[in-house]
Amino acid sequence: MAKLSAIGFDADDTLWQNEQFYRLTETRFLELLSEHGERQVLADRLLEAEKRNLALYGFGIKGFTLSMIETAIEVTDGRVSTAVIEKILAAGRDLLRHPVETLPHARDALERLSGAYRIIMITKGDLFDQERKLAQSGLGDLFDAVEIVSDKARVTYERIFTRHADGPEHAVMVGNSLKSDIVPVIQAGGWGIYVPHDLTWSVEHAETPTEAERFREIRDLSELPDLVREIAAA
Amino acid sequence: MAKLSAIGFDADDTLWQNEQFYRLTETRFLELLSEHGERQVLADRLLEAEKRNLALYGFGIKGFTLSMIETAIEVTDGRVSTAVIEKILAAGRDLLRHPVETLPHARDALERLSGAYRIIMITKGDLFDQERKLAQSGLGDLFDAVEIVSDKARVTYERIFTRHADGPEHAVMVGNSLKSDIVPVIQAGGWGIYVPHDLTWSVEHAETPTEAERFREIRDLSELPDLVREIAAA
Repeated sequence: MAKLSAIGFDADDTLWQNEQFYRLTETRFLELLSEHGERQVLADRLLEAEKRNLALYGFGIKGFTLSMIETAIEVTDGRVSTAVIEKILAAGRDLLRHPVETLPHARDALERLSGAYRIIMITKGDLFDQERKLAQSGLGDLFDAVEIVSDKARVTYERIFTRHADGPEHAVMVGNSLKSDIVPVIQAGGWGIYVPHDLTWSVEHAETPTEAERFREIRDLSELPDLVREIAAA
Repeated sequence: MAKLSAIGFDADDTLWQNEQFYRLTETRFLELLSEHGERQVLADRLLEAEKRNLALYGFGIKGFTLSMIETAIEVTDGRVSTAVIEKILAAGRDLLRHPVETLPHARDALERLSGAYRIIMITKGDLFDQERKLAQSGLGDLFDAVEIVSDKARVTYERIFTRHADGPEHAVMVGNSLKSDIVPVIQAGGWGIYVPHDLTWSVEHAETPTEAERFREIRDLSELPDLVREIAAA
């Protein structure tokens, strides 16, 4: 059995921009409510609502929109106008329609690795929205499998890499979230290749597992093919 | 190759109640807005919003909640109170938390068929919410595979039954939606077994394909094991 047979890719902020569009929407939200409180206070209340609702809504834009509406009512003690709520609804719809911008080197890295490895997209978020983004990205044909999951835990990687390849011990996962993409895949016995993104949602932060033997970090996806070759040959 | 090797099951209103909880939420919505219009007019406007948003939100409770808020603002020309919007948000959350009620004979039919066939749950809706319902239903162990999809078209069934079994020609799909569960699977070459439910969302209606050779209809899931045996033996 080959040492490495599968490469998993996170999508949002690994293959294409995501968080920056959320931030723009959040900025719009904060502007709409600027007369009702300090910017940072409003942002904190929104984050609180998002975290509180995560267990019920999961990840994605629709839940984010619902949390924005909830926060707008809360922070204004119900005095927010329906015109503002309509604008929040529209901002959510705009976010769902936002064109996909693939990140530098994403296509090239996928093209250089596909064929030699099973290439699997593993992403969280709204099923519908992630499928739209994959279709728009034009990268769909480069994947052997696509897994849109509600959570990324150790068992998630065990299940996916066993279903589509030779198990997590023979797999690499590439992503920008230490918490979701890197730490759990290393726990499952695989390699975690961390590609930091300038913007990563605070909920996705975790300590860098620098001690872990199977942890790697690269600056961007242009460094991935060589690193994969190195791991496979070691 | 066996004539039949896989049985797909729709989930909402095939294995467990769903639409009736949506209807209760809709009733609550109509009551909240009763001073702003005729019940039927309000219901029609809500359905219009849901259909309009389907291409953006997909299926599921979060999109339904967003459409209720949008409709509440629309039909009142913005005069709806934020107290009502808060109640709509709460109704959406209640719907997401609603306990799962499996339908009569669901467990028994699954138990009698599992082992002899690959049993696959194929359902639309919010990923997160469907996973919650599957976990709560206690039926999870009876499935060989679970596919939560954004749409149920002919290609969806071709892909799923090819991935998990011997293709749609050797598969049966069981469900309450003619449009989503029955017509496309017959187009893909499989059998469609229709189990009508008293309540089926109007968007899911389609003409009954009574002419199709591979169309079957049963009253409830107690009739399924015998029908499957009959199809496999014919």
